[in-house]
Amino acid sequence: MSTRVKIVTGAEELRHLCNEARKRGESVGFVPTMGALHAGHLALVTEAKKHATFIVASIFINPTQFAPNEDFAAYPRDVENDIAKLATVGVNAVFTPEASTIYPPGEETRVRVGRTAAPLCGISRPHFFEGVATVVTKLFNLVGPCTAVFGKKDYQQLAVIRRMAADLMMPVTVVGHPIVRESDGLAMSSRNRYLSAADRERALSLSRGLAKASRAFKEGERRSETLRSLVDDEVRVASDSVDYVEIADPETLVAIQAGQPVGERALVAIACRIGATRLIDNEVLGENG
Amino acid sequence: MSTRVKIVTGAEELRHLCNEARKRGESVGFVPTMGALHAGHLALVTEAKKHATFIVASIFINPTQFAPNEDFAAYPRDVENDIAKLATVGVNAVFTPEASTIYPPGEETRVRVGRTAAPLCGISRPHFFEGVATVVTKLFNLVGPCTAVFGKKDYQQLAVIRRMAADLMMPVTVVGHPIVRESDGLAMSSRNRYLSAADRERALSLSRGLAKASRAFKEGERRSETLRSLVDDEVRVASDSVDYVEIADPETLVAIQAGQPVGERALVAIACRIGATRLIDNEVLGENG
Repeated sequence: MSTRVKIVTGAEELRHLCNEARKRGESVGFVPTMGALHAGHLALVTEAKKHATFIVASIFINPTQFAPNEDFAAYPRDVENDIAKLATVGVNAVFTPEASTIYPPGEETRVRVGRTAAPLCGISRPHFFEGVATVVTKLFNLVGPCTAVFGKKDYQQLAVIRRMAADLMMPVTVVGHPIVRESDGLAMSSRNRYLSAADRERALSLSRGLAKASRAFKEGERRSETLRSLVDDEVRVASDSVDYVEIADPETLVAIQAGQPVGERALVAIACRIGATRLIDNEVLGENG
Repeated sequence: MSTRVKIVTGAEELRHLCNEARKRGESVGFVPTMGALHAGHLALVTEAKKHATFIVASIFINPTQFAPNEDFAAYPRDVENDIAKLATVGVNAVFTPEASTIYPPGEETRVRVGRTAAPLCGISRPHFFEGVATVVTKLFNLVGPCTAVFGKKDYQQLAVIRRMAADLMMPVTVVGHPIVRESDGLAMSSRNRYLSAADRERALSLSRGLAKASRAFKEGERRSETLRSLVDDEVRVASDSVDYVEIADPETLVAIQAGQPVGERALVAIACRIGATRLIDNEVLGENG
């Protein structure tokens, strides 16, 4: 099956391939990734196939979304295996550009989303969302997808991309796909492979905290500080540092402060470090179950 | 003939109209304007018709490219006459959105070009090019043109849009059209209608200065400070204030400093005020004649 996947490294080659697909009457779906693929990524492809007939996945570790002190150099790279995995779920083309293809010498344009990108990861990673918005714009313009699928594990990233696509009137539907978890609750992430066995055990504190908050919410708890504490207590004891544990509006991402009750739905979002590994997780209370 | 022009105010209506044109096999050309049209704008439409079969013009005075102290409120508005003029040159559709269509409540995304937007008008109008880049991105995403045409009178604007389109890998060819001048040399501009008869006379200093530099360049003058002085002397005596008279690289817009010789081609760019009216003009030495 893998022989049918087209591997593309050139930007204009990719544009041409997608144009030709459209000329044949295909609809183009797109799943951008940074590689080191797991079942969560493959679920995005499966989702994309519900919306489009010709599926493009990209594997590109985007340098502009990493700060100098972050793990760009160490980010897991496993392109051959990634392509094999994408073949099994029926991807038609995989785009694996060099950094200089996406950021050629002299390039100087950036896309910036405002308020949605400001809180949560925008505080601990101030350049992150500008890098994401910029690379996704470039990839959208090359692929021209009718639908693009992103995982909800990167909840704020999805919100930023939705905002950007709407604000810039991009001709694409952005679809979010639910978090895919390991059987013990750990949200799938390419960075999980960094975790030692002991760290992996500690990493379960994130999903455990979310489950506690979710249970309390279902039992009627609406005090944001109580819901937040249920998560924070779990995460803080298990992790080496906490970037944030926040209760926020699921649309605007504005924090619901202590003393304010949460509404029908509330985002619980976590970012923390287990050893050297930064992990994130989230749940929208009131959305599932 | 004007009955054949489709007037569109809604964003999705415009997108649909252009999608339908493409489905019929048409190629879409685009001429974005701020209205108050003159023969220079109509020449852009005529140029667009060389590249595409279905021509969309927009009339939108973009609030984000004006600073609070600038002439957004006073900018000339003459939509009915504009549409009639566009009909005479064979525009197929005119997009005349409300500001709230392009900037709905909650929108928060901006496109920013770096070095190309920094000198010249980027100094005197620091928010200008971010506003331009953002609105042009939105309009491109709605129209989906294969070709978009901009006037070279706004030389830096054209350079910024070219840069943005290339950097963000937009599927559009950006075409620049030569400056259209009145018979006495004044570059056509919507803002010329602000000028009193006496001011209009003074405004001829811009094209006169450019002509002097051009003549000197043709006669072999390559000292940037001499070329600059020829223009500056004309403009400074006639205008109320000078934002800049600059000799610059025509590609990067980097200023050629006094003491540096100019090369085969050099941009001479002027921005100044005649009364309350800000005028710009430019010429690329070595390019014409």
